[in-house]
Amino acid sequence: MSAVFGRIAVFGVGLLGGSVALAARQRGVAQQVLGVVRRPETAQALLSAGIVDEAVLAPDAAAVGAAGAAPAVDLALLCTPVSAMSRALQSGAVELAEGALVSDVGSVKGPLCETLPGLLPAGVHYIGAHPMAGGHLGGWRRARADLFEGAACALTPAPEAPEAAVQRVADFWRGLGARVLLRRAERHDAEVAWISHTPHALAFAFARALAAAPDAAAELCGRGFRDFTRIARSDPALWADILVANRKALAGPLQAATERLAELARGIESGSAAAVEQFLRAAGESLAAAESTQTTSGGAFPQSPAARAADEEQLPA
Amino acid sequence: MSAVFGRIAVFGVGLLGGSVALAARQRGVAQQVLGVVRRPETAQALLSAGIVDEAVLAPDAAAVGAAGAAPAVDLALLCTPVSAMSRALQSGAVELAEGALVSDVGSVKGPLCETLPGLLPAGVHYIGAHPMAGGHLGGWRRARADLFEGAACALTPAPEAPEAAVQRVADFWRGLGARVLLRRAERHDAEVAWISHTPHALAFAFARALAAAPDAAAELCGRGFRDFTRIARSDPALWADILVANRKALAGPLQAATERLAELARGIESGSAAAVEQFLRAAGESLAAAESTQTTSGGAFPQSPAARAADEEQLPA
Repeated sequence: MSAVFGRIAVFGVGLLGGSVALAARQRGVAQQVLGVVRRPETAQALLSAGIVDEAVLAPDAAAVGAAGAAPAVDLALLCTPVSAMSRALQSGAVELAEGALVSDVGSVKGPLCETLPGLLPAGVHYIGAHPMAGGHLGGWRRARADLFEGAACALTPAPEAPEAAVQRVADFWRGLGARVLLRRAERHDAEVAWISHTPHALAFAFARALAAAPDAAAELCGRGFRDFTRIARSDPALWADILVANRKALAGPLQAATERLAELARGIESGSAAAVEQFLRAAGESLAAAESTQTTSGGAFPQSPAARAADEEQLPA
Repeated sequence: MSAVFGRIAVFGVGLLGGSVALAARQRGVAQQVLGVVRRPETAQALLSAGIVDEAVLAPDAAAVGAAGAAPAVDLALLCTPVSAMSRALQSGAVELAEGALVSDVGSVKGPLCETLPGLLPAGVHYIGAHPMAGGHLGGWRRARADLFEGAACALTPAPEAPEAAVQRVADFWRGLGARVLLRRAERHDAEVAWISHTPHALAFAFARALAAAPDAAAELCGRGFRDFTRIARSDPALWADILVANRKALAGPLQAATERLAELARGIESGSAAAVEQFLRAAGESLAAAESTQTTSGGAFPQSPAARAADEEQLPA
């Protein structure tokens, strides 16, 4: 495809940043990919592995837009943990070209949308992004050019963001193979609290409880156990960052899951297979509704399409 | 391999029963496989598909050992839901040969070990089994001859069961590709309550809670969501049966998971990323311990090997 950006900088080259870099190079979505990392060894390794065209070290000073050693970039893509993004953007490692855009891959968008725009020079816009792809094992050595193929990617532009800027970031993610969806930042955070952060919390809580499990129970583990607990193998620092950053939106779904669990536990304790079956059947129906939404983007969790239309933006044509 | 049994009867030919039948035939673990089903159409379809050598219909009367139309079998393998096993065994559809054995694939062993032996004629022994294999989508059309390849299979013989009978059932499951482990029934039930039934309860509770999720959240679902919720797509009737049958052993782990979830929720709400990270790190460590047990059968969840040895039987050499 024709390049959406000339020169881009990827801040933080782990699984996600590395996969963006690889995919952008292989698919020609960017003409040149610069990796911004903290350690000289990483810079060298990334170059040797062909993940980036160029690598620079992030100093811990200066402001974005200040003259740096490297030529200016058209897109700064923040792929560090959420809590480190402001600092990365202010590191001064990379100069932003006039009219450049800033995007990211963070799992929580509200705090970023509040903070990052204030750090940018005039004429530079931040268009938040969250590709729903990754893996519980991180690191750029696991980077894959097809990581975003078919994955949803939510963009969370501010209402005042120029349509051309939104479109350009959308084209970038589509160029990497993702399905682009538009969301208000608050809505995105509420949604991922449900479909990503609460499952992670439940899986982590279960894994934590396992310390009290009888010895050798693990010998009996099958695929169900492994699939259910996979996300609890995710990086603790990264996920502590995400869960705490999204704590407001998480309170509701965590409470709902806790209440349903208590309800199910009471049903099991009562010994009524019929009551438990009814609960499990309703659970399966919620999932089936979610599944049809994932494949068709038509249906949804049991709520009215009207309520949704009223609350959603349409992607610029 | 040389056949472990001559003629076997599989009661209930779904995913598990169908896979046992296919594997036993293809691997020569049994000389002849008889399927016991309830509907004539199923009997015909199983024969056409080559899942069984012969199929009979289960009438709802008579006792095991009563003269039936079909020749006697050396192994009756119960693959119906747990709550239907007594009835299946008493259906009189199949005559048991002298010295025949009865086994099953049920997920809860205590109630079966209490009930089934009393239904058997003299000289016939019940050796409970639970292969840790399956899938959330059932039915014999998904049966696979390699379903048990590498899977753990727990045998739960009564203390008074003859060693030769235990060995024969162990040989049968090994012949299907499984790793055989011995457990007291109560211990098995306590272990699967932790590593299988509690994850199912958590996944079902989360799926049930999803009914309150915002519209269109499902559009953002990624692989983490799908893996975490896969087991909540399991058959509601079958799983209501299992959860209720194992309710005594489930109370403890469900309580522990609930308490850990509350602890994590408090940490998140407090906004302390350090406290949350510590929790998540401990969770990951429990899982790593479980993983090493699965691969080596050496370690375990954090408990003493001595406690385990004291409580475990060794498989006859």
